[in-house]
Amino acid sequence: MKKIAVIMGSDSDLPVVEAAFAVFKEYDVPFCAHIFSAHRTPDAAARFAAEAKEQDYGVLIAAAGMAAHLAGALAARTTLPVIGLPIKAGALGGMDALLATVQMPPGMPVATVGVDAAVNAALLAVEILAVSEPELAEKLTAARRQMAEKVLNKDAALQEKLRG
Amino acid sequence: MKKIAVIMGSDSDLPVVEAAFAVFKEYDVPFCAHIFSAHRTPDAAARFAAEAKEQDYGVLIAAAGMAAHLAGALAARTTLPVIGLPIKAGALGGMDALLATVQMPPGMPVATVGVDAAVNAALLAVEILAVSEPELAEKLTAARRQMAEKVLNKDAALQEKLRG
Amino acid sequence: MKKIAVIMGSDSDLPVVEAAFAVFKEYDVPFCAHIFSAHRTPDAAARFAAEAKEQDYGVLIAAAGMAAHLAGALAARTTLPVIGLPIKAGALGGMDALLATVQMPPGMPVATVGVDAAVNAALLAVEILAVSEPELAEKLTAARRQMAEKVLNKDAALQEKLRG
Amino acid sequence: MKKIAVIMGSDSDLPVVEAAFAVFKEYDVPFCAHIFSAHRTPDAAARFAAEAKEQDYGVLIAAAGMAAHLAGALAARTTLPVIGLPIKAGALGGMDALLATVQMPPGMPVATVGVDAAVNAALLAVEILAVSEPELAEKLTAARRQMAEKVLNKDAALQEKLRG
Amino acid sequence: MKKIAVIMGSDSDLPVVEAAFAVFKEYDVPFCAHIFSAHRTPDAAARFAAEAKEQDYGVLIAAAGMAAHLAGALAARTTLPVIGLPIKAGALGGMDALLATVQMPPGMPVATVGVDAAVNAALLAVEILAVSEPELAEKLTAARRQMAEKVLNKDAALQEKLRG
Amino acid sequence: MKKIAVIMGSDSDLPVVEAAFAVFKEYDVPFCAHIFSAHRTPDAAARFAAEAKEQDYGVLIAAAGMAAHLAGALAARTTLPVIGLPIKAGALGGMDALLATVQMPPGMPVATVGVDAAVNAALLAVEILAVSEPELAEKLTAARRQMAEKVLNKDAALQEKLRG
Amino acid sequence: MKKIAVIMGSDSDLPVVEAAFAVFKEYDVPFCAHIFSAHRTPDAAARFAAEAKEQDYGVLIAAAGMAAHLAGALAARTTLPVIGLPIKAGALGGMDALLATVQMPPGMPVATVGVDAAVNAALLAVEILAVSEPELAEKLTAARRQMAEKVLNKDAALQEKLRG
Amino acid sequence: MKKIAVIMGSDSDLPVVEAAFAVFKEYDVPFCAHIFSAHRTPDAAARFAAEAKEQDYGVLIAAAGMAAHLAGALAARTTLPVIGLPIKAGALGGMDALLATVQMPPGMPVATVGVDAAVNAALLAVEILAVSEPELAEKLTAARRQMAEKVLNKDAALQEKLRG
Repeated sequence: MKKIAVIMGSDSDLPVVEAAFAVFKEYDVPFCAHIFSAHRTPDAAARFAAEAKEQDYGVLIAAAGMAAHLAGALAARTTLPVIGLPIKAGALGGMDALLATVQMPPGMPVATVGVDAAVNAALLAVEILAVSEPELAEKLTAARRQMAEKVLNKDAALQEKLRG
Repeated sequence: MKKIAVIMGSDSDLPVVEAAFAVFKEYDVPFCAHIFSAHRTPDAAARFAAEAKEQDYGVLIAAAGMAAHLAGALAARTTLPVIGLPIKAGALGGMDALLATVQMPPGMPVATVGVDAAVNAALLAVEILAVSEPELAEKLTAARRQMAEKVLNKDAALQEKLRG
Repeated sequence: MKKIAVIMGSDSDLPVVEAAFAVFKEYDVPFCAHIFSAHRTPDAAARFAAEAKEQDYGVLIAAAGMAAHLAGALAARTTLPVIGLPIKAGALGGMDALLATVQMPPGMPVATVGVDAAVNAALLAVEILAVSEPELAEKLTAARRQMAEKVLNKDAALQEKLRG
Repeated sequence: MKKIAVIMGSDSDLPVVEAAFAVFKEYDVPFCAHIFSAHRTPDAAARFAAEAKEQDYGVLIAAAGMAAHLAGALAARTTLPVIGLPIKAGALGGMDALLATVQMPPGMPVATVGVDAAVNAALLAVEILAVSEPELAEKLTAARRQMAEKVLNKDAALQEKLRG
Repeated sequence: MKKIAVIMGSDSDLPVVEAAFAVFKEYDVPFCAHIFSAHRTPDAAARFAAEAKEQDYGVLIAAAGMAAHLAGALAARTTLPVIGLPIKAGALGGMDALLATVQMPPGMPVATVGVDAAVNAALLAVEILAVSEPELAEKLTAARRQMAEKVLNKDAALQEKLRG
Repeated sequence: MKKIAVIMGSDSDLPVVEAAFAVFKEYDVPFCAHIFSAHRTPDAAARFAAEAKEQDYGVLIAAAGMAAHLAGALAARTTLPVIGLPIKAGALGGMDALLATVQMPPGMPVATVGVDAAVNAALLAVEILAVSEPELAEKLTAARRQMAEKVLNKDAALQEKLRG
Repeated sequence: MKKIAVIMGSDSDLPVVEAAFAVFKEYDVPFCAHIFSAHRTPDAAARFAAEAKEQDYGVLIAAAGMAAHLAGALAARTTLPVIGLPIKAGALGGMDALLATVQMPPGMPVATVGVDAAVNAALLAVEILAVSEPELAEKLTAARRQMAEKVLNKDAALQEKLRG
Repeated sequence: MKKIAVIMGSDSDLPVVEAAFAVFKEYDVPFCAHIFSAHRTPDAAARFAAEAKEQDYGVLIAAAGMAAHLAGALAARTTLPVIGLPIKAGALGGMDALLATVQMPPGMPVATVGVDAAVNAALLAVEILAVSEPELAEKLTAARRQMAEKVLNKDAALQEKLRG
């Protein structure tokens, strides 16, 4: 199976990003994580992206806040799908990171998820691998079923509470 | 090879979405396109998404404007990667469609691209298929090289003009 | 009398939504509440909406945050009035939920109230039922009078304080 | 059957608002329309709202742009459901009208629809009357079916075009 | 001397508004304050505004949050200058109140100050009275001089600290 | 009677600002207009403001776009009421000018009107002079009556049209 | 004298950027211009920035729209001052480019000017060179004087017109 | 070497601004800091800017919040590069200060950095001086290398943690 790489621009992003690691463990998907900044270590970030395909990575996730260039910087160096995870940081509440991640020029897509949505970034990466991994696809389907059940259980609990 | 499906919420989205078709033809990727509204034909949209995997689709693209629910509505019915393409429509300039597409709840990712970014939606879909299609990956790499050359040619033309 | 249904997308919306229950009790209006997610349990949500009219519901309230699709998803399955209650959640302060709820396409209205405005969602539902329930209309008018008196009493208290 | 009243703040709103009249004619619902400004003719607006219930109106629609106070001003004088229709006008693109209409204080709901969404304002009014008018409800359901068919026909046309 | 009236839409605005009272006391300007809601007590608010001129008020200040209609509602009933003080309340951080206050239709100006800027609302009212009250104008000029001195003293303290 | 001064930051503001001149002529109020830029001719702007009171001006209006500093720059040099008129210019639609005009620091109020609202800026200036000019106040009241009649006439015309 | 380099991300930026060239010619400052994309030709952009100092450039200007990464990408490779010029492009009016340019992480400043403000980008570059080029500083001072005169002449023309 | 001046509009900006002082000390660059308000002490601010060049200052930094006019006010009086540092203050989260600082009219550039980005303001000032100070340029390059190493060390620590 292809591996997933999570690159974050700063160690301050780690508390949000860690929720993605849990998803990968749950789905038993091999992953790595790195702190490479688009601005402070542009060569390390560029080299990682440029070599990612031959290193057997299938998807890259880039987490960054403010003028979040990391996802775009990786996308510029690889044709692997790059998922952009905008992080809420600084004074403007994440809107800056969202726009800086999603509004990419034609030819350079970044698959953007919601602000601080580390779980969704991870699940999207798993869904992408699952396109050619039927077993993974089955796990995803099963998880959906569980997710639905959880909601229905909460609804049942609410019914009790309302009757109560 | 897996197929790509483009679903748009209204035929008014077609002029923007057509740019995606050109990309698929360029990459020789099988695709279909449908007008299914999340609100006006919710059953058709839901059924298409629910059956997409067994119909051998690999990626879904959902194009919609304003309170753009289509990508989310498809994502709710399949674990295939769903790409959200927010369309500029109505009075608020596409910001409504962007937020309604990208800010999905945990567990239901939508891979969002920029407002009206049909080319990027298409390329992202191709990149996702290319994860397990080496030939497609090579085409993507070649296209990147051409894209770079085009920019460098434009730069050369600018140098002439400035000297001129 | 017709019943009112409150559907919320997640149990995390409950603390806000509960203020609506108090209104229904005050007006002695029959209501139910459910946790059905537009994305995690789309069938349950769709089925509830589709059957709501024959189950003798008169109005549906849908509470959801972020890319708030729930109100639209219900509206797509019923012609009962659907009230959208945008919930503040995530990084963007409720503006995402507001736009995702109110900017519906032509043909599918959602009666949207302010962000986190559970009391207003409930009162609007009561006002809708009151169109054909004169007794309810009288209660609403009486409540308005009380509301005005409360403000005038607060003004009187302020006069005392200023004189004090 | 109860009547519907459409109040607009200025005759410059008429080109947008007229789309609502067509809906009322389609559904054969009695309606009136007035130009009453919350600021320029506050007494006329207030009096109309105060007397609307005994004049046998069931729903009020208020269309206004910029610092759109009209819906709130009517809501302050009646307990009939008031639908707010924010109009795009002036430099700020309708966001001002949307917020000035929807963010009402607790106790005074306004059922807000999208910016310039006159058709949805009208349909919401019809839906509200239909709660106690089964015949109207049937018409609404039939219209939904037609709307769905229209979308499916457009999809069929697209299939032709793509095959072509 | 003409009097100044401060009307606030809710007693929850009082903690912000009280800063205005201190200004009036400092300038020895007669003032009153009332809690009148544009929506909950529209008649009281309208009557106060309509009679304000003959009650010898010279300026009205209206403080309100969210869909802040109060300033406009007062302006609709008097030709006295009305100062709008948008209050930060609810989920949208005061931008709703600012737009609902400042974007008035032609013919009905509201002199808007910044969000929560009670001191500026009060000073603006004093400046307006001072147009025909030379003594008040002198006090304002003196206060400016003191304000400048305060800043220069703080600068001097900073110089000490930097040398320290 | 005190005079009104209109200062605009650039001659490109003139087409919007001219609507104010018409108001002053209608009310027979003496006024002057100048092009003084807060940045390009700061001394001229500062000197005008500093001398305005002894030159018998009663109110200053400052019209400027983008990072609209003009109103604040005048307010810093006089204690006369300064009305800020934000002009829509450049890429950001006037929101920049609005915030740069209204969000003044404590102690330096600017009476801000809506974006491009030259008529309201002028009327607010007239209202301020009218505080101590009963004749002017009467004209304002008469104009309000005419404004109301105009709206009611338009309503009457609409009734004809609807019956038509 | 050090040279100035203008890098733009796309030839579509040229119509805006050309206004900067005129400034450089007016001040007789040596400059070059290139089309290098942060995403399409990241190596060319990075190499240019990395070698700029030894090529005797003193300031870089980066013009880009949407998720404008170019200024940051250059700043990551040089310690020369980098001026960011956000270009209005795409659906979101330039706010995306502004935030993506200005909100840089600590350690990597970009000197951002207004949206489409090519003249200001150029003047800022000249001002930076002028810090160590007294002759250039004199030219700048002279230009300011001319700019002021132009405004005062326009004011004089307005006085004629008003007297007219 | 030229000196750097930091002007802040209020002593409440000091906690943010102090991070700039640390940068100057680290680079051994002479600097001063002052509290001069564009509105409360306009003369002091104007005089400082007007004399800055002959006082051997090379760059000015202006820190201000809300309707942040300080950077523009300084820029109006000098042709030295002026760096604008928008401060988050008041209800609107710094967006007001950002727009009021960056959207300067043609002819009067302000080099704007991110909201509360005092470190970047300081580094940009150092970069500007370094254009003609090779020693300073070397220090900047060395600091970049250290910054990169820090990131790589944090990455190494993350690798340990992930293996752990």
